[in-house]
Amino acid sequence: MHVMVIGAAGMVGRKLVEKIAAQPGALGYDVEALTLVDVIAPPVPAQLASIASALALDLSEPGAAGKLVARRPDVVFHLAAIVSGEAEADFDLGYRVNLDGTRWLFEAIRQEGMTAPYKPRVIFASSIAVFGEPFPEKIGDEFFTTPLTSYGTQKAISELLLADYTRKGFFDGVGIRLPTICIRPGRPNKAASGFFSNILREPLAGQEAVLPVDESVRHWFASPRSAVGFFLHAARMDTARIGPRRNLTMPGLSALVGEEIAALGRIAGQKAVALIRREPDPVIRRIVAGWATDFDARRAGELGFKAESTFDEIIRIHIEDELKGNI
Amino acid sequence: MHVMVIGAAGMVGRKLVEKIAAQPGALGYDVEALTLVDVIAPPVPAQLASIASALALDLSEPGAAGKLVARRPDVVFHLAAIVSGEAEADFDLGYRVNLDGTRWLFEAIRQEGMTAPYKPRVIFASSIAVFGEPFPEKIGDEFFTTPLTSYGTQKAISELLLADYTRKGFFDGVGIRLPTICIRPGRPNKAASGFFSNILREPLAGQEAVLPVDESVRHWFASPRSAVGFFLHAARMDTARIGPRRNLTMPGLSALVGEEIAALGRIAGQKAVALIRREPDPVIRRIVAGWATDFDARRAGELGFKAESTFDEIIRIHIEDELKGNI
Repeated sequence: MHVMVIGAAGMVGRKLVEKIAAQPGALGYDVEALTLVDVIAPPVPAQLASIASALALDLSEPGAAGKLVARRPDVVFHLAAIVSGEAEADFDLGYRVNLDGTRWLFEAIRQEGMTAPYKPRVIFASSIAVFGEPFPEKIGDEFFTTPLTSYGTQKAISELLLADYTRKGFFDGVGIRLPTICIRPGRPNKAASGFFSNILREPLAGQEAVLPVDESVRHWFASPRSAVGFFLHAARMDTARIGPRRNLTMPGLSALVGEEIAALGRIAGQKAVALIRREPDPVIRRIVAGWATDFDARRAGELGFKAESTFDEIIRIHIEDELKGNI
Repeated sequence: MHVMVIGAAGMVGRKLVEKIAAQPGALGYDVEALTLVDVIAPPVPAQLASIASALALDLSEPGAAGKLVARRPDVVFHLAAIVSGEAEADFDLGYRVNLDGTRWLFEAIRQEGMTAPYKPRVIFASSIAVFGEPFPEKIGDEFFTTPLTSYGTQKAISELLLADYTRKGFFDGVGIRLPTICIRPGRPNKAASGFFSNILREPLAGQEAVLPVDESVRHWFASPRSAVGFFLHAARMDTARIGPRRNLTMPGLSALVGEEIAALGRIAGQKAVALIRREPDPVIRRIVAGWATDFDARRAGELGFKAESTFDEIIRIHIEDELKGNI
């Protein structure tokens, strides 16, 4: 099988590729070729050097999607996107990359199928940003998508396209609505959601972190390992079980910031907790107040997607995967 | 005020223009200019000759939207679309007209606003085809849009764009999800939904009509007069009351085919009912089985949108508006 990862230099993309490198059977079939794509050439793990090629290519450039699809991958992971804050600040860029880029990919697949039979599986990274407040206490699988950001709008539109192209038989699509990924590895960033990870990752490494909201803030989480697991499961599952409603809210953990901190205390002690500095930020507080806090992701659960059920697990996964077991 | 009607040669577009002609205050403000647009030059009612101009223009042609928007209308009714069956049969045409045409219109308005302040009201004709089965008994205002046709997909995407462009302040948009319009005037056509109108309109005119489904089929209806009323109300209402969820399922009447026929009998007698010939058609029966049957359109009701509550009313409106009161 030929597997293509678009957005392979991003956090989840890199981890997905690393997983395929570390566990060749992770997809449930042999990977004979791997094409890694991003706007900068993505890293190729040494174990994959013989089968992988890395391409620097912007999906939103005319002709780019056609070039990729001409390689006729059997499985396409589409994770490339302009992030939420940037898509909100630059309206044209967000629509060009997140909507047009995705549509051109889907359309290139359809066009390729007109030359000779072709029906890849397409796994698309969507987001809970497709939802907009006010929310019910738990957002069910049939709740409507009324995004309050351009990013969420672009993801919701891509979901609709994915379902229609799948319904018409042009490809076999699955949309994966990711929870907020926690603990994000790397350095603190300025994303409004960054603190959810910062307040765990930094203290685990002996560093200070800033908490800009109250401990009573609730949010919806899954680990990077779960995110990779969602994509792998979507690539190997029997999609006939999904039916025509192809976009799935992934399972996750609904937790309070206070529960994050309590789990940190249990695992790394009060010294770690003491590294969290409270600096209320009214702007971040207001942004976060508009985010979804809890879901009833029943369909994805029934279809075999799995996530963590405690923050202790989420922290332990970070320690295993990022800190080689050491804190 | 300058009012533009795109899709002014269609059934609802024509009736909307006729209403503005017959009742100059219908929009709640003076209409000083009226631009009527369709792929063929739309008819101009004699009373409007001094203020109206008719344009033959295809919104899906490059540059067309910019030409329209350069006239800086204060109110834009966007009713132009490729119908459901055609959009399903010709994938490219449906996406070009129903998605790209709409997006280009929205984008042209945004671009126009960059040259000098401009924020028209945009009223967009959407459809209950944005929903796909299986349905709850009544579809509520927060039910998700999982269309099972390309037409429904294009309408759902346009709704998302309308909400985002409105949220960003580029225009003041309202999406109007129309019920099935009944009684459609004119000749019987081959649309799968045609029989809902045919079995009333033809017998009222002394003609035979074919009923291809059982009397137990339930569906969701509003008269052409109500459809025009929805658009007029959307044009004059205080949109601040809507909030960011700009797409509204219109009120309607949920009724059985058997109830249509009973109303026909009450109004036009059993001679009219006897003109309905039962010719079960398994293809039409199967298509119709996938359509929504009932809604709880609470939000639109609270916002002042109104439709009929009996089929007797729907038939009487047809007799008044199309048959000059004579049967």
